[in-house]
Amino acid sequence: MIYDAGSYDVAVIGLGHAGCEAALATARLGLKTVAFAINLDSIALMPCNPAIGGPAKTNLVREIDALGGQMAINTDETLIQERTLNTSKGPAVRALRAQSDKKRYQFNMKYTLEKQENLDIKQAEVVDIEVENGEVKSVITKNGARYMCKSCIVTTGTYLRGRIIIGDVSYSGGPNGLFPANELSKCLERLNIKLMRFKTGTPARVDKKSINFDAMEIQPGDEKIKPFSYLHDEINVEQIPCWLTYTNSKTHEVIMRNIDRSPLYSGEIKGVGPRYCPSIEDKVVKFPDKPRHQLFIEPEGRNTNEMYVQGMSSSMPEDVQIEFLRTIKGLENVKVMRPGYAIEYDCIDPTQLKQSLELKTISGLFFAGQVNGTSGYEEAAAQGLMAGINAAMKLLNREPFILDRSEAYIGVLIDDLVTKGTNEPYRMLTSRAEYRLILRQDNADFRLTEKGRQIGLVDDERYERFLKKKIQYEEEMERLKNAMIVPSDFVNEYLKSKGSSPIVTGITMYDLLKRPEIDYISSKLIDKDRPEDIRDDVAEQIDINIKYEGYIKKQLEQVEKFKALENKKIPSWINYDDIKGISIEAKQKLKSIMPTSVGQASRISGVSPADISVILIYLQSRR
Amino acid sequence: MIYDAGSYDVAVIGLGHAGCEAALATARLGLKTVAFAINLDSIALMPCNPAIGGPAKTNLVREIDALGGQMAINTDETLIQERTLNTSKGPAVRALRAQSDKKRYQFNMKYTLEKQENLDIKQAEVVDIEVENGEVKSVITKNGARYMCKSCIVTTGTYLRGRIIIGDVSYSGGPNGLFPANELSKCLERLNIKLMRFKTGTPARVDKKSINFDAMEIQPGDEKIKPFSYLHDEINVEQIPCWLTYTNSKTHEVIMRNIDRSPLYSGEIKGVGPRYCPSIEDKVVKFPDKPRHQLFIEPEGRNTNEMYVQGMSSSMPEDVQIEFLRTIKGLENVKVMRPGYAIEYDCIDPTQLKQSLELKTISGLFFAGQVNGTSGYEEAAAQGLMAGINAAMKLLNREPFILDRSEAYIGVLIDDLVTKGTNEPYRMLTSRAEYRLILRQDNADFRLTEKGRQIGLVDDERYERFLKKKIQYEEEMERLKNAMIVPSDFVNEYLKSKGSSPIVTGITMYDLLKRPEIDYISSKLIDKDRPEDIRDDVAEQIDINIKYEGYIKKQLEQVEKFKALENKKIPSWINYDDIKGISIEAKQKLKSIMPTSVGQASRISGVSPADISVILIYLQSRR
Ligand SMILES: Cc1cc2nc3c(=O)[nH]c(=O)nc-3n(C[C@H](O)[C@H](O)[C@H](O)COP(=O)(O)OP(=O)(O)OC[C@H]3O[C@@H](n4cnc5c(N)ncnc54)[C@H](O)[C@@H]3O)c2cc1C
Ligand SMILES: Cc1cc2nc3c(=O)[nH]c(=O)nc-3n(C[C@H](O)[C@H](O)[C@H](O)COP(=O)(O)OP(=O)(O)OC[C@H]3O[C@@H](n4cnc5c(N)ncnc54)[C@H](O)[C@@H]3O)c2cc1C
Repeated sequence: MIYDAGSYDVAVIGLGHAGCEAALATARLGLKTVAFAINLDSIALMPCNPAIGGPAKTNLVREIDALGGQMAINTDETLIQERTLNTSKGPAVRALRAQSDKKRYQFNMKYTLEKQENLDIKQAEVVDIEVENGEVKSVITKNGARYMCKSCIVTTGTYLRGRIIIGDVSYSGGPNGLFPANELSKCLERLNIKLMRFKTGTPARVDKKSINFDAMEIQPGDEKIKPFSYLHDEINVEQIPCWLTYTNSKTHEVIMRNIDRSPLYSGEIKGVGPRYCPSIEDKVVKFPDKPRHQLFIEPEGRNTNEMYVQGMSSSMPEDVQIEFLRTIKGLENVKVMRPGYAIEYDCIDPTQLKQSLELKTISGLFFAGQVNGTSGYEEAAAQGLMAGINAAMKLLNREPFILDRSEAYIGVLIDDLVTKGTNEPYRMLTSRAEYRLILRQDNADFRLTEKGRQIGLVDDERYERFLKKKIQYEEEMERLKNAMIVPSDFVNEYLKSKGSSPIVTGITMYDLLKRPEIDYISSKLIDKDRPEDIRDDVAEQIDINIKYEGYIKKQLEQVEKFKALENKKIPSWINYDDIKGISIEAKQKLKSIMPTSVGQASRISGVSPADISVILIYLQSRR
Repeated sequence: MIYDAGSYDVAVIGLGHAGCEAALATARLGLKTVAFAINLDSIALMPCNPAIGGPAKTNLVREIDALGGQMAINTDETLIQERTLNTSKGPAVRALRAQSDKKRYQFNMKYTLEKQENLDIKQAEVVDIEVENGEVKSVITKNGARYMCKSCIVTTGTYLRGRIIIGDVSYSGGPNGLFPANELSKCLERLNIKLMRFKTGTPARVDKKSINFDAMEIQPGDEKIKPFSYLHDEINVEQIPCWLTYTNSKTHEVIMRNIDRSPLYSGEIKGVGPRYCPSIEDKVVKFPDKPRHQLFIEPEGRNTNEMYVQGMSSSMPEDVQIEFLRTIKGLENVKVMRPGYAIEYDCIDPTQLKQSLELKTISGLFFAGQVNGTSGYEEAAAQGLMAGINAAMKLLNREPFILDRSEAYIGVLIDDLVTKGTNEPYRMLTSRAEYRLILRQDNADFRLTEKGRQIGLVDDERYERFLKKKIQYEEEMERLKNAMIVPSDFVNEYLKSKGSSPIVTGITMYDLLKRPEIDYISSKLIDKDRPEDIRDDVAEQIDINIKYEGYIKKQLEQVEKFKALENKKIPSWINYDDIKGISIEAKQKLKSIMPTSVGQASRISGVSPADISVILIYLQSRR
């Protein structure tokens, strides 16, 4: 029996990283929101590595933060270690990586949701989505509750028809020993949504007591923790180290000897796995010449002995997992607390979505997270936030909120998904971003806070903090351009100490800072009029923007060209069959993706520059 | 494929309240122990009320503590509120009740297990127990791991063939949205173990934001928290209140109107439910004249908005649950976060067990907790500890550790189970203990610390604390017997202030304390030589033991008689068929229960005093 369980503006199916951001966004934008998880104790669960961030992913997290999302705040509040990565490399690829206290991350996020006005969270499995006249009407739970809703955001992660595989053992199940969602896929199929079957995997969790850390390299946290969120100035917590060790030829021998028992190679696993988080058996098979692979042993929390073995994801049988783990330095006597496993699940072909993450064919039905064929917490959260914003924009009769590839990694992520699709779990990488020198993790607030403010997710506190920072930055840049440094023994002594050539005539501080070896902070010595209160993050902006000025300018010029094509909108009434001179393949692709701009059309695989010219001419003639 | 996963002394199946105590006990006694849970995140989960203690249960918790178990310590470390119950009643029924932070309770216990030497914990579903020549040999997990073991303790709670029922919806599942254990029951059946089918239920969890607390009565914690563990002197945490409200005629009307949709009454639920934790529909049907039932709204933790509705356990359809909840004062707009449900599960007939909780027919196979037909966290933990101790005693070639009915509530619990069996979930009640004036919660340390020390579970810290307390108590009792109080204005003024009659001749402090209105602590005023450092808990002992001296003496005499029969051991070679004059029913029962003493025999239902006389004569003749 179905009963009426109430009316909401938005129903969010799933409370993983995508669902949490989606639900918070719609509720914060004033929409009555209900959000479901199969188990409320699994909210914001990290079924894989207990870490947030890393290259490209840090950018996503900070973009989420600048727009008023929750992931960065929750990370800061629950981290147990942080490291800055790629410090010796250019600013485009620098990143943060936080080890999280996995359980605290979950329960802190859960409490945030619980306290959120306009938001009700429920433990329930959604089994059906009702659609009427091409519009979402309601969702129905296993216990027979019907929730009326105007929009629905599907963020079901790896749960849809989840299947766990460990060697020759396999069974229906969600991640981390949780229940799968076996009903909803049927509903999606009934709604004519094209599903794909992907897989992902995770390594064993092992017992700290059984590890010999003396045989490993310690990886302590940074001396000073750099917060992920622009709201936080500093984080003072005791940090817990990670540990570095390596596989060796014995490890590889164990894997190769048992490779016929690997479900990946026996054909037992049919889902497509993530290229950039391969299992250890995959790495050993694909790179037979590599003598060793790096492994990080990471704590799962402050008050637990469970340790994560990063780099050892596997779906080999349990005995093989134990055998190969014990070949590793420091893990000779290791005890496994939870074995590694692979999980296969249903996801949708994301090219069925608009840039707003709404399904093209059903009004009000949005998708976000791993269900869109991605992998990774940060990718999920970014989509969740955008789907939430766009569900809200639609209900509030406002324009969709689309970020393009020159504005944010989030833009790259979504454009890649909906334009190119993916045939394997999609992960964000710096190499995917053409304009990565602009889309840095350090300037996400400069890029996006104003937009978040317009949307309505940036509250006064965040906005005022940002404005203060921005004003300080701009005033100081202005001042630096006028601050003359005149030659003196003192100045040249300083320059010498930095390995820099002496000056013979006056030079502005700004020009001096162009020298790679001169950094803003230490140059205070020779820069008499510098204000006392310059923030560290402003100093960082100054250094980067002055030193990379040339490159940035060049990239901005490219962006302008990009924008030109991006601004050539393709009206939704276009009929590609009417246009002569486009290849058949291109026609098919264009009709299925329905790009909204010539720029987007140009990125569809199978659409050639010649096709684009034809479209441009056609559009010109139709004006 | 089955692989060899190592050899252990003891394998514990399950890490609920029973399994945690069992595993800690065997590991602490030096035995190599492996313990399994289907999900490591569910260790020490409280699937029902977020509270430990209450009448009779407090006694169990403190007995566990005195013997060196963990429950009291873990409760103290994670409580968010505590109340002393029945303060106005006699000491036999006084009790503590702690509200726990549910998640902290779990993860604190998990970390305790993780840190325990000799103990490995694993996430795995045990699907088989291998027995050879009537002895346990190994356990096998779903992933094909075989763990050799000399003893196995089964503590599977409500997971065996678990089935969740909410109205007309039912599905295979464990408690709290977790996986059930569907394989192990078959193994138990194959081992000729008689199974029963019981059920239990839990109320909805509701959203604090949606409750109008102004319409309810606040139930704050005690001003001073009294620790459960004898190891703790005080607990200083901010307490969180509970709230009292009531059902009313409207609530009852909603239930009665929908009673045909109740799976309890439609026959959908076949398992037998707990008499002392009935569902609300049960209460309304069975007590139609009762105008209202008490409800407590209890927080599930410090940092969550989930609230538990104590007294509203239900398996009615979700819409009915919402409808009847909203008839209640303060819950008019309540939002349900997780619905109530019933769970049916397999348990064993506990009369198949010895007093040591070992199965009579398979050497080394122990059972403890809800799988023995009980209900309640404390009951489970108590059995877990005893099964752990006895598994260890057996492997260490020591005598079984049996507590009789005059020594501990634990003794009553286990004797009831193995002697009388149970046809519904068994819950501990003060009324079950014949000698409850002796088996008080305040003197569990006096009763059991020495025994725990002999077993090896009472460490030096606990033992020394206990000895100090005991010596202080004994010295002070001695002193009080000799401390003469002579009449004086001051003394009589004090007595008057207490509503007590003046003295005219000298009287010992001891005799004065026999007066109900004179308490030990305030009488310090007139008791000049009293040492300064008498502990509060010693004061409590003194008050109770002096005031109830007469009753206690009488009960001790009863205990002596009881012990006489208890000490008449029945040898295991007895053949009841050889004994003439025992009724056929009694013979059958005796042969199945195989009591170890005449005392135990006398408590078997169907065995009459006449049968007992015959047995006594028979035993006499066989000496
Ligand atoms: C085993 C494993 C290994 C992984 N390894 C990696 C890795 O190496 N690298 C990497 O980057 N990422 C990895 N991931 C991916 C990462 O965990 C996910 O990308 C991320 O958690 C996805 O977030 P999400 O919000 O999309 O979905 P999830 O976090 O999966 O959350 C889904 C939510 O939906 C709910 N739900 C599902 N169906 C229903 C329904 N019918 N009704 C109600 N609620 C429902 C669930 O209860 C849950 O709350 C791995 C994931 C798994 C499971
Ligand atoms: C819905 C519900 C309502 C309840 N209501 C009440 C109440 O009102 N009053 C009351 O006093 N008590 C109530 N209880 C009972 C109380 O929760 C239990 O008595 C107590 O938790 C039992 O403890 P246990 O250790 O025996 O089992 P559990 O706490 O159930 O733990 C069982 C453990 O065994 C593990 N396990 C099971 N099978 C396997 C296997 N094959 N392999 C590996 N691991 C396995 C599980 O993972 C779990 O760790 C209720 C329980 C439930 C579920």
